[in-house]
Amino acid sequence: MTVDLAAQAAAADDADELAHLRDRFTLPDGVVYLDGNSLGALPAGVPDRVADVVREQWGKGLIGSWFGAGWWEAPERIGDRIAALIGAAPGQVVVGDSTSVNVFRALVMAQRLSGRDEIVVDATTFPTDGYLAESAAKMTGCTLVAAHPRELKLTDRTAAVLLNHVDFRSGELWDMPALTAAIHDAGAYAVWDLSHSAGALPLALDAHGVDFAVGCTYKYLNGGPGAPAYCYVRADLLPRVEQPLPGWCSHGDPFGMEAGYRPATGVTRLRTGTPEVISLLALDAALDVWEGVDLAAVRAKSLALTSFFVECVHALVPAERVTVLTPQARGSQIALACDGAEAVMNALIKAQVVGDYRPPDVLRFGFAPLYLRFADALRAAEVIAQVLA
Amino acid sequence: MTVDLAAQAAAADDADELAHLRDRFTLPDGVVYLDGNSLGALPAGVPDRVADVVREQWGKGLIGSWFGAGWWEAPERIGDRIAALIGAAPGQVVVGDSTSVNVFRALVMAQRLSGRDEIVVDATTFPTDGYLAESAAKMTGCTLVAAHPRELKLTDRTAAVLLNHVDFRSGELWDMPALTAAIHDAGAYAVWDLSHSAGALPLALDAHGVDFAVGCTYKYLNGGPGAPAYCYVRADLLPRVEQPLPGWCSHGDPFGMEAGYRPATGVTRLRTGTPEVISLLALDAALDVWEGVDLAAVRAKSLALTSFFVECVHALVPAERVTVLTPQARGSQIALACDGAEAVMNALIKAQVVGDYRPPDVLRFGFAPLYLRFADALRAAEVIAQVLA
Repeated sequence: MTVDLAAQAAAADDADELAHLRDRFTLPDGVVYLDGNSLGALPAGVPDRVADVVREQWGKGLIGSWFGAGWWEAPERIGDRIAALIGAAPGQVVVGDSTSVNVFRALVMAQRLSGRDEIVVDATTFPTDGYLAESAAKMTGCTLVAAHPRELKLTDRTAAVLLNHVDFRSGELWDMPALTAAIHDAGAYAVWDLSHSAGALPLALDAHGVDFAVGCTYKYLNGGPGAPAYCYVRADLLPRVEQPLPGWCSHGDPFGMEAGYRPATGVTRLRTGTPEVISLLALDAALDVWEGVDLAAVRAKSLALTSFFVECVHALVPAERVTVLTPQARGSQIALACDGAEAVMNALIKAQVVGDYRPPDVLRFGFAPLYLRFADALRAAEVIAQVLA
Repeated sequence: MTVDLAAQAAAADDADELAHLRDRFTLPDGVVYLDGNSLGALPAGVPDRVADVVREQWGKGLIGSWFGAGWWEAPERIGDRIAALIGAAPGQVVVGDSTSVNVFRALVMAQRLSGRDEIVVDATTFPTDGYLAESAAKMTGCTLVAAHPRELKLTDRTAAVLLNHVDFRSGELWDMPALTAAIHDAGAYAVWDLSHSAGALPLALDAHGVDFAVGCTYKYLNGGPGAPAYCYVRADLLPRVEQPLPGWCSHGDPFGMEAGYRPATGVTRLRTGTPEVISLLALDAALDVWEGVDLAAVRAKSLALTSFFVECVHALVPAERVTVLTPQARGSQIALACDGAEAVMNALIKAQVVGDYRPPDVLRFGFAPLYLRFADALRAAEVIAQVLA
């Protein structure tokens, strides 16, 4: 059986038109890295770029680099690069702060536009989204309503709905156009968290009429540990949004040092304080790996990789030991329910197959299509079988 | 006159016990860098440390570095390093997010502890503090009151007062113990912005009973462009504070992925989302320059440097061309009012004397005592005289 799978993997890797993209990354030898959905691998161009930012731009350019090296406008410039990956026209995405802060920012903006008094949050959400939604609700005088994406409790009081595009635990992919349309039908605003889909599949925020979106850049976008997040606001809403964290970098004339706040036009009004430049420009360099990459091909490979992994798991791992939790409609990860999952994952990591554990019993394996091979998927299944033997 | 000043500068540099600290920085040749109060110079150890974080910790350690390389607890660990520089016992400072975000966080926490409905903000504040104070007031149902630090409008409705320790424009240093005591007498909480004092003079937050403080780390703490800010909460208040940005990193069991929020104990409850690790660890490396440094000696040199600079300006620059705005009670900067200040500053920068311009008419010169020499102060005054001739 393994022989057939090995031949199948080799054939798939040979035929893989994206195989050369692996060279755009620096990966440690011998490791099957299936945690790119937590922290993407290091793009090969990042170290030199970061060294230049530190030694030349900061060390020699000093304060002059804010404009001389383009630091000041980097949040918008890099935002436009991300926009191109999520189906958004330029001028609607800005990079900065954490995903958590951007969840708060987006929900408060949506509620203020709406004026209604309920915020609905995906009951299966990544926890931080729920915590920030609770705070946003409290601070805007709203009730927080937890609802499953299949049964959104939309009413004429619903101001905004916060949804994850991909469930962080199961990997299930939700139907963005249909859910966005349903939210709009209820007269509410859709706020999508793209953390587990951006860079893993084609997105079409503009086409689907999404109102607000946020996402992290250190998963499939490979921006580095804790790389800054981003916030998207649909162009026609931008002139009207009023954000809760209006810092000097979002002011219409930031160097005018005016006592009164007046927001910048455009996406700049989503900024807050001084951006963490070194991390920000590491992300900028990381985005170079997307040059010439077709996200439809990425998606095709992602589905093929994850399907093949499931096939290998079914073939090699005793059926009673694991259950595949991830449905067909999925992002780029496979979640396996498994007794003693935490200890199992520790053993896998020791054996150089790196995924992660999510309570209560989930083994999570992310398949970053830019640098993973079908042979990696097979190897992972083999090691899981050994560990569970 | 210049001959005497040159001899004076040489003697002062010879006698300077901190002179050797300049070697802990990488500074471009020929530049007199008087903008360390905007962006501190590059500490010599930062580039190698950042390269290690990128190539080894991220590139090879991958997800395992969150615990294996100590990324996870870095915000508290580095917070303790900053605590030591601002007169705070360990466990009260956490690093992360921008100063702007931390102003919002601190003010909301203070208001919630107080329950009163007015927030007072320094009318001469750095603008971002005022903008965020306005937002914090709005979102907590408070009235925002602008008041000069000499005439705080404290009433029995005052929840919190946000003050800058050093005025960003004039360089005036406010009396932290006296103002904090006055705020406490009114039953309110004191929130100090230390951006322009931390690293420039000894601070004693604990001794002065300060309630909350925030500050940036890219000025006198040399943490790099947009380096993450910090937040201080007095130990006895920590168990009771409820912050407005409760993210997964501030949860009592962040990897438990619990649906409900419950804050971590201690200073960890001030965190929000995933920290920007590369920028964060650049700051960590930058703080090494403080090893063995006595802040009282730093303060003495700062006052001597700024006094000598004023003396040189008075000696060399025609009195009608500039007015010294900075009083005796000051941080580590000198502000000169000057007609056509913006063009003058541009000319100074061209002549390798780098300060900055603040509207409407201020030439601002920061004196970072760790790497500046008395000869630099003289050279700056000479060039100012040339430019204004």
